[in-house]
Amino acid sequence: MSLIKDAQRGLVTEEMKLVAAQEGVTEEFVRKGVAGGHIVIPVSPYRKVKICGIGEGLRTKVNASIGTSSDISDVSVEIEKVRQAELAGADTLMELSTGGDLADIRRQVIAATSLSVGSVPLYQAFIEAAHKKGAVVDMEADDLFRITAEQAKAGTNFMAIHTGINYETMKRLQNQGRHAGLVSRGGAFMTAWMLHNEKENPLYAEFDYLLEIMKEHEVTLSMGNGMRAGAVHDSTDRAAIQELLINAELADKAFNEGVQTIVEGPGHVPIDEIQANVILQKRVTNRKPFYMLGPLVTDIAPGYDDRVAMVGAALSSSYGADFICYVTPAEHLALPTPEEVFEGVISSRIAAHIGDMVKLNKRDDDLEMGHARKALDWDRQYAVAINPKRAKEIRDSRMPADTDGCTMCGDYCAIKIVAKHFNF
Amino acid sequence: MSLIKDAQRGLVTEEMKLVAAQEGVTEEFVRKGVAGGHIVIPVSPYRKVKICGIGEGLRTKVNASIGTSSDISDVSVEIEKVRQAELAGADTLMELSTGGDLADIRRQVIAATSLSVGSVPLYQAFIEAAHKKGAVVDMEADDLFRITAEQAKAGTNFMAIHTGINYETMKRLQNQGRHAGLVSRGGAFMTAWMLHNEKENPLYAEFDYLLEIMKEHEVTLSMGNGMRAGAVHDSTDRAAIQELLINAELADKAFNEGVQTIVEGPGHVPIDEIQANVILQKRVTNRKPFYMLGPLVTDIAPGYDDRVAMVGAALSSSYGADFICYVTPAEHLALPTPEEVFEGVISSRIAAHIGDMVKLNKRDDDLEMGHARKALDWDRQYAVAINPKRAKEIRDSRMPADTDGCTMCGDYCAIKIVAKHFNF
Repeated sequence: MSLIKDAQRGLVTEEMKLVAAQEGVTEEFVRKGVAGGHIVIPVSPYRKVKICGIGEGLRTKVNASIGTSSDISDVSVEIEKVRQAELAGADTLMELSTGGDLADIRRQVIAATSLSVGSVPLYQAFIEAAHKKGAVVDMEADDLFRITAEQAKAGTNFMAIHTGINYETMKRLQNQGRHAGLVSRGGAFMTAWMLHNEKENPLYAEFDYLLEIMKEHEVTLSMGNGMRAGAVHDSTDRAAIQELLINAELADKAFNEGVQTIVEGPGHVPIDEIQANVILQKRVTNRKPFYMLGPLVTDIAPGYDDRVAMVGAALSSSYGADFICYVTPAEHLALPTPEEVFEGVISSRIAAHIGDMVKLNKRDDDLEMGHARKALDWDRQYAVAINPKRAKEIRDSRMPADTDGCTMCGDYCAIKIVAKHFNF
Repeated sequence: MSLIKDAQRGLVTEEMKLVAAQEGVTEEFVRKGVAGGHIVIPVSPYRKVKICGIGEGLRTKVNASIGTSSDISDVSVEIEKVRQAELAGADTLMELSTGGDLADIRRQVIAATSLSVGSVPLYQAFIEAAHKKGAVVDMEADDLFRITAEQAKAGTNFMAIHTGINYETMKRLQNQGRHAGLVSRGGAFMTAWMLHNEKENPLYAEFDYLLEIMKEHEVTLSMGNGMRAGAVHDSTDRAAIQELLINAELADKAFNEGVQTIVEGPGHVPIDEIQANVILQKRVTNRKPFYMLGPLVTDIAPGYDDRVAMVGAALSSSYGADFICYVTPAEHLALPTPEEVFEGVISSRIAAHIGDMVKLNKRDDDLEMGHARKALDWDRQYAVAINPKRAKEIRDSRMPADTDGCTMCGDYCAIKIVAKHFNF
């Protein structure tokens, strides 16, 4: 089954109907988007997935990445992260564990959610090589493809795969140098592997085989961003753009084979380069869904990187990015806690909305909030707030004597003064 | 004494020298900026103020507004807000109390800080009228001017004064209507007063007298934004722009009289209108320092408005705003706590820096962070972090087994993989 082929045959599937209803667009709009590769709808033949469309003309979606590390590995904490991410309104999850029993953790996480769950299969392949053979560079290509298929069968329904790192990309990196090197784990693993084995990246060299696996298991392919900058001074550099070109070329090939495809983008990007990144990526990928990672627009605010990424994500979304990977306040410092996962999702959701106000002119909730504020109607305000509970908690923690207003202005509330004295 | 007149005579004062040294620009650059009205340096003849330049070519500055309300009035809490604002790195404070003994609170706040302290004199004038005469609309113009002078003598060294609300501005508002009306307390008070008394705003009608007071006490005039939108659907509307035009006209007059002048801007503004606001304001004010209030770029995130304002402030700063009024997470819900003041200042400072990366190409600390990250040198990272304490707390709360890295990636840290396998 291929949604792309269905759409191209003129068929409007149940998934497309659902997306159209969720988004308030026509079914034909969604069908055309899928048929043209501008919209993806991740599905899975192995489990029932909450349908969520990603791409042109649709609400900007937010992904929350969770997972263990070699230092902190407790599946119950990961399940709590799933719960917090869902509470905060994440649209998708990525399960990126690198510590503990990876297959078991993934199984339990998938069992705990109906959201689409993404993965990065090469993590498991490299880590198993390290455990079984002593070094990540001893990973064998066959194991990588086997694990990719296994993860799909376990219900992982989109995958970040580092197809764009090849000798050409590596040459750009070597010839250019970098301030902060590689910060993508997939990019670092694969580059190390290529250098050690003097072999081309199997995900690039055997891309046709990869596509067979994607097709067989109906996985949505998210073309990974292994060369993304890890510092604003490395942003939009030749290595990253070379990888984008390779990914874009392969994305067309995947699309032609009926594989739904997303292309990932940076990373660390100062605000004056975000628009160029979005325009370039949309152009060279023929308007494939753009999965923006962050982006972080300054490097000097560790502890607040969810807020830093909000600025980048809001701009990205306004310029046309379709899908935002959240960043938590623990980024660059530690594995996030469930509370930090919640904060990260909220920050990204606000950013996605700020962008959608421009990209899609989605401003109805803002208008309702403005009217509810003028009416001093707190229940109406909470009803359209992104987190009604938090808003209510803050106000209730300091209730005013006159319960119409709030303690900020008390008796001298501008809205009350206006209501008393004006009739316009 | 007038810094403007000094600068125009070619004199480089101690204040200008200090600003030049702080900012890494030449003394001549600062002198020219002051002489042309593009830079202000708030001073006070009544107390020693920590010198801070605001305007073109200088680092974007952050103001923290504090103060009591009729519901919550405890001067010790206000003093703690001063401490938290300074800890978080605020450049200036505004003391905006509307509850308790206003003069005494202001006196104690000013005694607790060496930062420039701003005020809105009409709050006190209107509130005293309400207490003594029964209604804010019974305020008398003489009292307003008397209080303005008293506040200056108490050491308040910049003042937001609502000069731009006149019959012309009010006509725009009446003819147009609004979704959320007026949300500026000064704007609401003054409009109510004008309607009730059928008199022109004395701050406009007697602007020359106001300037005499500003000159006598060397107050920096911040032209208030009483018509600013309180909802994104009211942004950049005819009422707000009419007020801007009046303020801009008066700002030139003030400048010609040797009064240092800032012009305030909105408010609530979606991200696609921010650049137009900055360009317009800079143009019609002849490049006076632009004091941006927020701006809030969506209305649907009460409880997170410091983050929402970050997006607006970062863009504003990048386009040319010089001075940012912070927003706290309690905005629209309650009077902020000292902790919320801290959070608000941090969010605004990050935003100001994000803007300065573009406006002034200030990226040295980002570069150092990138290099420190590549070197896995945590002390160097903390040294350039906007809040070293918070960054260290997050990492230390979850220390990795291998203390070179962090628990996010543990053994599979990209930077460690790169260091082990590459030599580029």
